[in-house]
Amino acid sequence: MGTYSKGLEGVVAAQTKISFIDGEKGVLEYAGVPIGQLASHSTFEETVFFLWNGRFPTTPQLAEFTAALRARYGVPAGVEAMVAALPKDAEPMHAIRTLVSALGLYDPKPNAIDLPSVRDKALSILAQTPTLLAYFHRHRQGKPLVRPDASLTLAENFLYMLNGSKPTPAMTRALDVCLILHADHGLNNSTFTTRVIVSTESDIYSAMTGAIGSLRGPLHGGANEGVMRMLNQIPSVNDAEKFIQDKLAKKDKIPGFGHRIYKAYDPRASHLKVLAEQLAKDTGNLDLFQKSTAIEAVMNREKAAKGIYPNVDFYSATTYHCIGLPLDLFTPCFVIARVGGWSAHALEQLADNRLFRPDAEYTGPHNLPYAPIASR
Amino acid sequence: MGTYSKGLEGVVAAQTKISFIDGEKGVLEYAGVPIGQLASHSTFEETVFFLWNGRFPTTPQLAEFTAALRARYGVPAGVEAMVAALPKDAEPMHAIRTLVSALGLYDPKPNAIDLPSVRDKALSILAQTPTLLAYFHRHRQGKPLVRPDASLTLAENFLYMLNGSKPTPAMTRALDVCLILHADHGLNNSTFTTRVIVSTESDIYSAMTGAIGSLRGPLHGGANEGVMRMLNQIPSVNDAEKFIQDKLAKKDKIPGFGHRIYKAYDPRASHLKVLAEQLAKDTGNLDLFQKSTAIEAVMNREKAAKGIYPNVDFYSATTYHCIGLPLDLFTPCFVIARVGGWSAHALEQLADNRLFRPDAEYTGPHNLPYAPIASR
Repeated sequence: MGTYSKGLEGVVAAQTKISFIDGEKGVLEYAGVPIGQLASHSTFEETVFFLWNGRFPTTPQLAEFTAALRARYGVPAGVEAMVAALPKDAEPMHAIRTLVSALGLYDPKPNAIDLPSVRDKALSILAQTPTLLAYFHRHRQGKPLVRPDASLTLAENFLYMLNGSKPTPAMTRALDVCLILHADHGLNNSTFTTRVIVSTESDIYSAMTGAIGSLRGPLHGGANEGVMRMLNQIPSVNDAEKFIQDKLAKKDKIPGFGHRIYKAYDPRASHLKVLAEQLAKDTGNLDLFQKSTAIEAVMNREKAAKGIYPNVDFYSATTYHCIGLPLDLFTPCFVIARVGGWSAHALEQLADNRLFRPDAEYTGPHNLPYAPIASR
Repeated sequence: MGTYSKGLEGVVAAQTKISFIDGEKGVLEYAGVPIGQLASHSTFEETVFFLWNGRFPTTPQLAEFTAALRARYGVPAGVEAMVAALPKDAEPMHAIRTLVSALGLYDPKPNAIDLPSVRDKALSILAQTPTLLAYFHRHRQGKPLVRPDASLTLAENFLYMLNGSKPTPAMTRALDVCLILHADHGLNNSTFTTRVIVSTESDIYSAMTGAIGSLRGPLHGGANEGVMRMLNQIPSVNDAEKFIQDKLAKKDKIPGFGHRIYKAYDPRASHLKVLAEQLAKDTGNLDLFQKSTAIEAVMNREKAAKGIYPNVDFYSATTYHCIGLPLDLFTPCFVIARVGGWSAHALEQLADNRLFRPDAEYTGPHNLPYAPIASR
């Protein structure tokens, strides 16, 4: 029997060409291209094509991909009716998990796992996740649904359906960059979940539903909400130092800092920081950004020597807030991005599949008798 | 970086006291008790208590556990309304995945992961999964729902809600034994999925939903349906030999034979074989059992030397058929049983948690430039 590494730390569970992380140097590449290049020059649609194909699209290929995506923004009528019947106080992550699962009920061939079928279904899930989230958000507010607009990019259309008005180009671009930065990240827990589930030759709805369930966790995608809650607890920039020192004195974890993989500055965080600063200025939220940099300054002094730096969640909180997303849509917004990466990993897993079936080390007794109930 | 074992074969991913498998000797124990003892003497309710607590209940403890379970057979009105709106041609596994996910929408504190809360929520999911399945099955047939009867055991109540009449004691006991035999099985894929998802500190609804998605796969829980389809393809017992030889000549896999772990007779299969024979006689399905033993005889001659024996799926197909379950409820019925094991593993994982975050081995290029679209 192999040796046991808790949480599979240091265990190689898959080979991949999709993304690469060097946690010591603070490097993240998608299919060989540094994340900064993509955040600076690409779009979310192009990045997803790139993740799914391992090469950049030509102009006609991107046009075809984008057109196919936009043609699928609408959701099945039965799922729309399901949204209208959901309890308004449900948590969005539970809602989106249920609704993505429900998409499988309206697919005439939900179980097809040949690669073209998975690609096709993944495109629909990618297109429809923002719609489902926006519909649920409108529904819980008692507002009429805003139908998708197929003339808009995925990011622009999401904000349009959410708010009922077209977002500014700066907000659209900010969300688009967030989606690019969050699209993939090696064998993180939800991506691993995706690969584990599809390895049974189960379907892409099952895999995505499980991955959403994983991402909800506070130790995973749920962490960005923790950052925002912390920022809300700090009255002003002048209170940041004391707040953090108090938390450190109690050995509390500071949301948005540290990462299992990165022992250097998370390359996504550096991009988000620039983005967050500009957006905060534009939207009158400079105090939020200043609180964030004040926290970072304290942490830099106290913890950088231990390799604890801001992670992707830290400045994405300010960014999402400035875009106008309510706190409980932060993690669902992460879902939109990660559907791109999960799909890429599902395709890669299925192209050379082997069932995930690790061993457990049994630590209990053996060969005990069944004790009749009267004798217990 | 560690070495790569495809599918994590031979890698120890968790320590557990819940179940033990010796694949060479054909041993399966739940918390130290051989599965045959439980199949012979226990009930599903007692077995679940045993898996969750690592000890058998006393008479008052079992009475309390059973009463709490039965009090929860009913489902939230909103989920019942959701069942009534599902498309009637949806596949039951997609339906049950969506409906278990939806239970989280009606829980006022769905995210609580302290152990008493998880235990409490798991008890509700255990109680309500049969109800949701039976409701969906009645709905798709256009028949009125049959409300749960809290005076009945879980197995008896499930068959009652499904068919609208009380099952015979033999059928109830057969289903109960099936549920015992299917309740847990080491770090199988869906159980591993459960542990991976809860390790993010996500909730039990997310974990169960992901686990159902995993179990749907034909390489996992979906395999029992494959056995039944094969039995249906064989006109009579006399055709079994040629059918199997033809498949072997084409190097096709034979559903219900072979297992990653067992290189000996699956101890669950030997119990199911006895059960299936008696039920087949009682219900006029002896031809089905005879076809099965004829297949086993061929396989025994051809493949036993290679360690390929009937697995749990092989005789469970006949058993489920004799109980009156339609083919597409075989895997959902497996869900009912495995909720018991998944819950036990969620509790064990959370009691000593560490985020599952394995490494990937990156096999692609590095440091590629972003190519402007006009240049591609």
